[in-house]
Amino acid sequence: MSKPVTRREFISLMGATGGTAAALQVGTALGLLPGGAQAASPELLALGSNRRRVAILGGGLSGLTVAHELSKSGYDCTVLEASHRCGGRIFTVRAGTLIDEIGNRQYCEFDDEPHMYFNAGAARIPTTHHNLLNYCKELGVELEVFVGENNNAFLQDDAMMGGKPIRANDYKTNMRGFLSEMLAKSLTQEEMDEPFTEEEAENLLGLIRSFGDLNEDLVYSGSTRTGYASGGFLTHGVQRDMMAFRDLLKTRMGRQILSGYEGDYGPSLLQPVGGMDQIIAGFLRQVGDRVRYRAMVAAVQVKDDGVEIAYDQDGVRHQLEVDYCFNCIPTHLMAGIDHNFPSDYSKALKYVRRGEAYKAAFQAKERFWEKLHIFGGITSTNTPSRAIWYPPHGIHKAKGVILGAYDYGGGMYHTKMSQSERIEAHLSDGEKVHPEYRSLVEKPITIAWHRMNHMLGCSARWRRSFREWTGEEEAMYHTLQGPVNGRHYMIGDQISMHSAWQESAILSAHYALSDLDQRVRAELA
Amino acid sequence: MSKPVTRREFISLMGATGGTAAALQVGTALGLLPGGAQAASPELLALGSNRRRVAILGGGLSGLTVAHELSKSGYDCTVLEASHRCGGRIFTVRAGTLIDEIGNRQYCEFDDEPHMYFNAGAARIPTTHHNLLNYCKELGVELEVFVGENNNAFLQDDAMMGGKPIRANDYKTNMRGFLSEMLAKSLTQEEMDEPFTEEEAENLLGLIRSFGDLNEDLVYSGSTRTGYASGGFLTHGVQRDMMAFRDLLKTRMGRQILSGYEGDYGPSLLQPVGGMDQIIAGFLRQVGDRVRYRAMVAAVQVKDDGVEIAYDQDGVRHQLEVDYCFNCIPTHLMAGIDHNFPSDYSKALKYVRRGEAYKAAFQAKERFWEKLHIFGGITSTNTPSRAIWYPPHGIHKAKGVILGAYDYGGGMYHTKMSQSERIEAHLSDGEKVHPEYRSLVEKPITIAWHRMNHMLGCSARWRRSFREWTGEEEAMYHTLQGPVNGRHYMIGDQISMHSAWQESAILSAHYALSDLDQRVRAELA
Repeated sequence: MSKPVTRREFISLMGATGGTAAALQVGTALGLLPGGAQAASPELLALGSNRRRVAILGGGLSGLTVAHELSKSGYDCTVLEASHRCGGRIFTVRAGTLIDEIGNRQYCEFDDEPHMYFNAGAARIPTTHHNLLNYCKELGVELEVFVGENNNAFLQDDAMMGGKPIRANDYKTNMRGFLSEMLAKSLTQEEMDEPFTEEEAENLLGLIRSFGDLNEDLVYSGSTRTGYASGGFLTHGVQRDMMAFRDLLKTRMGRQILSGYEGDYGPSLLQPVGGMDQIIAGFLRQVGDRVRYRAMVAAVQVKDDGVEIAYDQDGVRHQLEVDYCFNCIPTHLMAGIDHNFPSDYSKALKYVRRGEAYKAAFQAKERFWEKLHIFGGITSTNTPSRAIWYPPHGIHKAKGVILGAYDYGGGMYHTKMSQSERIEAHLSDGEKVHPEYRSLVEKPITIAWHRMNHMLGCSARWRRSFREWTGEEEAMYHTLQGPVNGRHYMIGDQISMHSAWQESAILSAHYALSDLDQRVRAELA
Repeated sequence: MSKPVTRREFISLMGATGGTAAALQVGTALGLLPGGAQAASPELLALGSNRRRVAILGGGLSGLTVAHELSKSGYDCTVLEASHRCGGRIFTVRAGTLIDEIGNRQYCEFDDEPHMYFNAGAARIPTTHHNLLNYCKELGVELEVFVGENNNAFLQDDAMMGGKPIRANDYKTNMRGFLSEMLAKSLTQEEMDEPFTEEEAENLLGLIRSFGDLNEDLVYSGSTRTGYASGGFLTHGVQRDMMAFRDLLKTRMGRQILSGYEGDYGPSLLQPVGGMDQIIAGFLRQVGDRVRYRAMVAAVQVKDDGVEIAYDQDGVRHQLEVDYCFNCIPTHLMAGIDHNFPSDYSKALKYVRRGEAYKAAFQAKERFWEKLHIFGGITSTNTPSRAIWYPPHGIHKAKGVILGAYDYGGGMYHTKMSQSERIEAHLSDGEKVHPEYRSLVEKPITIAWHRMNHMLGCSARWRRSFREWTGEEEAMYHTLQGPVNGRHYMIGDQISMHSAWQESAILSAHYALSDLDQRVRAELA
């Protein structure tokens, strides 16, 4: 054990927040909850007898949003999708799905049942993401509740309790108790900054007591909120021993339990019934006939009066001349495609880095988590696999699909492994939480977004530093957000300040559509 | 405003916990989470060619559990149900349902659609209630996720912010911030009880900072966890102003936001698809042919070799002679039925009081809460109506059914009103949260459990004092838990220490079945 910290040293540590709290923040970038403007589909001018041709490069969510909205207003849209499917990082894996990782193509072998799927990309919908929710409603995408926080799921860290998994509830309840006790003590032992009225003091104390489940002496001595050691229904409940504060301080993962389910990750959350790609299916019911698959863009030339696109499909070079072009090709791939963009635009395209997220999933031969009273939610572990997600749907059915790894903070660790090494890593990590894991799961799949064909990366990373955008970044962002020559628009969650969310992809599309609409209205006026 | 509290007075207040914290606890009896023994159906001896007749008085969940288990083992069961339906306080109201309140019979006029129902009694399943979940699995009752805590739901208290509803998230995030700041300050300003190591101190400080979203100076200055004032997706998010600590202290309802979703109410929670009474329907698929409806028990005579029961059905007196009797008639009603129970048994029956819970519901003409980004969950108000629950199912459909009142701490306030007074009260209370409430809801129903025919009360209340069972209560409880003469068993959640939960009803049945089984095994040995 390290040396004890003196009073003075502790205060000094508190000042050194760059080194302490900042370090603790790495890896769990807490989702922010953007502002609450009401959702509204863009009100585009209907073209009537006028004709406008539009090319949409990439069939991701932003591209399909543009295709859908423009088609409604009479635009003649063509979507060029490089791969065999639309959706981009909205990707649901089920029986027969091709996972087109370069050098590691996989076909999913899950049982062919509606609840046996895995959302390998976007996997939860915050209820504040109302533009996305509006499209779900408009397109008939059925929604159900997703479980984020689950008190019965586990927290596992080799540094704590000898690596034994404990219930999230155990960590949460005990830590709340200790924090509350410290707080109550501080109030009794020193002058408060400002005087409270009697009512305020009573209320505050009651709140602190109930928050931590303190006893009458304002001491935390365990809580029945984590369940009883025995009894509780037919006999008196016997309280479980409280955990030791010092034991709980061994893990650095407390933040994930105490603060990980706020903001975008707070209740309630939703998911489409049957898989996130039901959203893509909804768009394709509207504009599926506009999509050309396996159509890889080779060149984009912006002219004064339109845009010329060259693309290869099944070995044949095609040309497409349009009035406008919307482009959700990942910036770092677009940077390598022939184009005549201005140099600042080109520079910005090259600047954006990509997240390295990695996911893996297993088919479980039985729903073993339900025997542990876990129905949905997330187990957090300090292994490289980081998490196990249990499905909130298909309750009590024979089998289920679980997430076996979600490495969102530096996914190259697993990406660099062979498929068999990856699987062994997740089995081994999973055994720390569920001892029989290895025998309970089968038919693994892995998704390394950095090697996925036509993607080669996950969500955009604009900022080089953790905290603030630099002026240079800001300028490049606004360059890409605006059109080239009023004819070519970059779109996608990559052109947002909140990447990796479907809502951002939609809003980037709406932003571009609104700009286009103004130009068209001016032309036709 | 009241006079400021001096340091000494504050400390003295802290000691007077009987008056402060206890007062704050009234009204929100925090659910406890009973112990985690694995669920197991009772292993009853199969009777084979032996015959045993059993009467089950009352078709509530405990009675049906007994009927189901005994039927599987070859017992000849008869269920006498006083009303027109089984289920007792598992009661789902939908189009056409009769709400048989004495003096206020209502027929529900909700639209006739699968998602348009209201669980007027039991309404959520904690995932630790594994005996109940096991029956759901065995009986093919489909389950889905229920939403308890919802950050987007409201908190409304006339005492706070001039009665303006605020989002639960606003209260939670801001209060966590202030509490954390106080805690962090206390750590910097005074000697700690025990020395922390450098690692521990770092970790603890990081945890406190992240818990409250404190800034680098360990000060709470607002948080983006409640969403931005503007922007966040395409432009930088502008942080909302933080609320004033003093304003948040105006409400005494903080406990419901900060601590109300722990224990039995913590995530994840479940509900049956289509209504809680699908559980009853599941049992009736097994033993529905054993039920005699409108069969009101008139007398129970326990003999040495069996039990004689008299009951009235459609104006005719019937006799039923059985070997064993299981009785889930509410204790206070059973006390008034002719019987020959021992005097201590009779005394105990009369001792148990009944909760006074009251619920009301409306059909909403549109799902107005979804426009406010609320999908499931609970709004808390300091009005007598107390709560609005939004359905977690039927998302994006045209209409929905919402709970408009749940008065669980003293439901006689509404019970004593006329139906039109009740409705007006809930409309008026609801308008404090949703200004257009009155025009958005229709087809009200109310359920005053104290006046429901054949029930006349809600869950059992054993304890006269809030905290501890007295020795006398304990003795009476054990009297009722045991059989009379080895022939007659009281069952139901009323014979548990955790009343008002379905799990308790099932466990009371299992307890009695296990006792019976031992006796039968001895007889047949």
